[in-house]
Amino acid sequence: MTGFGERVRAALTERGPLCVGIDPHEQLLAEWGLPASAAGVREFGLRTVDAAAGRVGVVKPQVSFFERWGSAGFAALEEVIAAARSAGLLVIADAKRGDIGSTMDAYGDAWLTPGAPLEADAVTANPFLGVGTLEHTFDLAEQHGKGVFVLAATSNADAFTSQRALVPSGRTVSAEIVAEVSARNAAHTPDGQWASLGFVVGATVAWEDAGLIAPVPPAPILAPGFGFQGAQAEHLGRYGAAAPTVIASESRSILAAGPADLAARISERAASYPRTAHV
Amino acid sequence: MTGFGERVRAALTERGPLCVGIDPHEQLLAEWGLPASAAGVREFGLRTVDAAAGRVGVVKPQVSFFERWGSAGFAALEEVIAAARSAGLLVIADAKRGDIGSTMDAYGDAWLTPGAPLEADAVTANPFLGVGTLEHTFDLAEQHGKGVFVLAATSNADAFTSQRALVPSGRTVSAEIVAEVSARNAAHTPDGQWASLGFVVGATVAWEDAGLIAPVPPAPILAPGFGFQGAQAEHLGRYGAAAPTVIASESRSILAAGPADLAARISERAASYPRTAHV
Repeated sequence: MTGFGERVRAALTERGPLCVGIDPHEQLLAEWGLPASAAGVREFGLRTVDAAAGRVGVVKPQVSFFERWGSAGFAALEEVIAAARSAGLLVIADAKRGDIGSTMDAYGDAWLTPGAPLEADAVTANPFLGVGTLEHTFDLAEQHGKGVFVLAATSNADAFTSQRALVPSGRTVSAEIVAEVSARNAAHTPDGQWASLGFVVGATVAWEDAGLIAPVPPAPILAPGFGFQGAQAEHLGRYGAAAPTVIASESRSILAAGPADLAARISERAASYPRTAHV
Repeated sequence: MTGFGERVRAALTERGPLCVGIDPHEQLLAEWGLPASAAGVREFGLRTVDAAAGRVGVVKPQVSFFERWGSAGFAALEEVIAAARSAGLLVIADAKRGDIGSTMDAYGDAWLTPGAPLEADAVTANPFLGVGTLEHTFDLAEQHGKGVFVLAATSNADAFTSQRALVPSGRTVSAEIVAEVSARNAAHTPDGQWASLGFVVGATVAWEDAGLIAPVPPAPILAPGFGFQGAQAEHLGRYGAAAPTVIASESRSILAAGPADLAARISERAASYPRTAHV
């Protein structure tokens, strides 16, 4: 089976680094003329998938905007994820789940088990309760060619309390997370391949301030905050040696185009990024 | 409107500190003779609510075990929460959500908005992206008499990387979280009342090692890990000055009794805790 890291490499080679965020928050629903309801987020999600298919390699539904509508919202999310996967898009469920023991395991099962209602290609996870709590989720991902993106560093100043605190070795918490997950990747990734356990690193994070270096072995880096939040395609260079594995996620900068102009906006934004043959 | 802190105080005064965790993981479903499915977790949850009603003041459904079954699992959770609230139980949705900006806001809206499908009395939240990211959720809670339990310290050694790292003031991250939330509580809590923004502190956490002191003003402390995980009623004393506000959550120690003996087990475990008049 092809590992998730290699699937990301193929997608970025074919379509470039742009990832379309599917973020149906209430203001965007209103701008699109859709109701603030489960029906509204379903329609928003399916239209975005239609526009993204064939234009980018990766989409990232933001779970909270579906969860807002309870079970009906999750039913909509199931449809959106299934439609995206059927269209050949890699789906990263942005759920940021984190817990301990069998509780965390159930979150991993929910998003990564083949045939589960919410099955995606990858899920985002929160390591505040320890990278070790994600072990079962990592196992499950590797077993089924799925991915996990571990929150490592975000760019909001609020986050510095937890993320830039120092562990006994003198590393930042962010750097320690990257080191712990990379050690696991090193033990599970064939030579020359991209690893399947990636990281979430905000697009406007100053890498050196966060104590970060490029992961070894190379691992996908999900970078929310491109476009509207200020990071532009040329900022890929900030990631230095990590730039080739960056998945640049844009949400508002694309979604604000509205449904009629969405496909054109996606094409335009996708063309603004460099295309690299990752071979 | 009565604030959530005062609602917890009334519940603990009337029924004692025991909280029944509703954790329908697959092994327990099998032990109960229930299918591993949304129908199984629904039945498990409703039976637990029936047994808990009138015997304890608080229940804590663990969201991941419902999420495992996708939208149908969330439909089951909606029924379980509604049944518990109708029976007069305070419901803490153990979701441990955490994100930034409007994404986090949507999580707060999902669990705390009156009339929302998943409306609970309180939700657990993950502060890894910064206590400030929870501001809207805090506002919403205070507006509607709801509560938020912020993850502060857990007892698994894995968690020490993030939680016991040191911030520039020399505090642990855990202590910094308690300080930041307590400052907010101090500004929003009438004299003599319990605050509505509480903390999750694992039952077997060594408080001094974690750099913790009792929150001021007093705030509810959700303590998972009583019973099966080793903390017993007499361990309430470990919380020192914080002991009176502790909600002692037991899951497996109660649920392993099976459906037929569940009510008796809950009564027995509830009676093992001291009853304090919090007046």
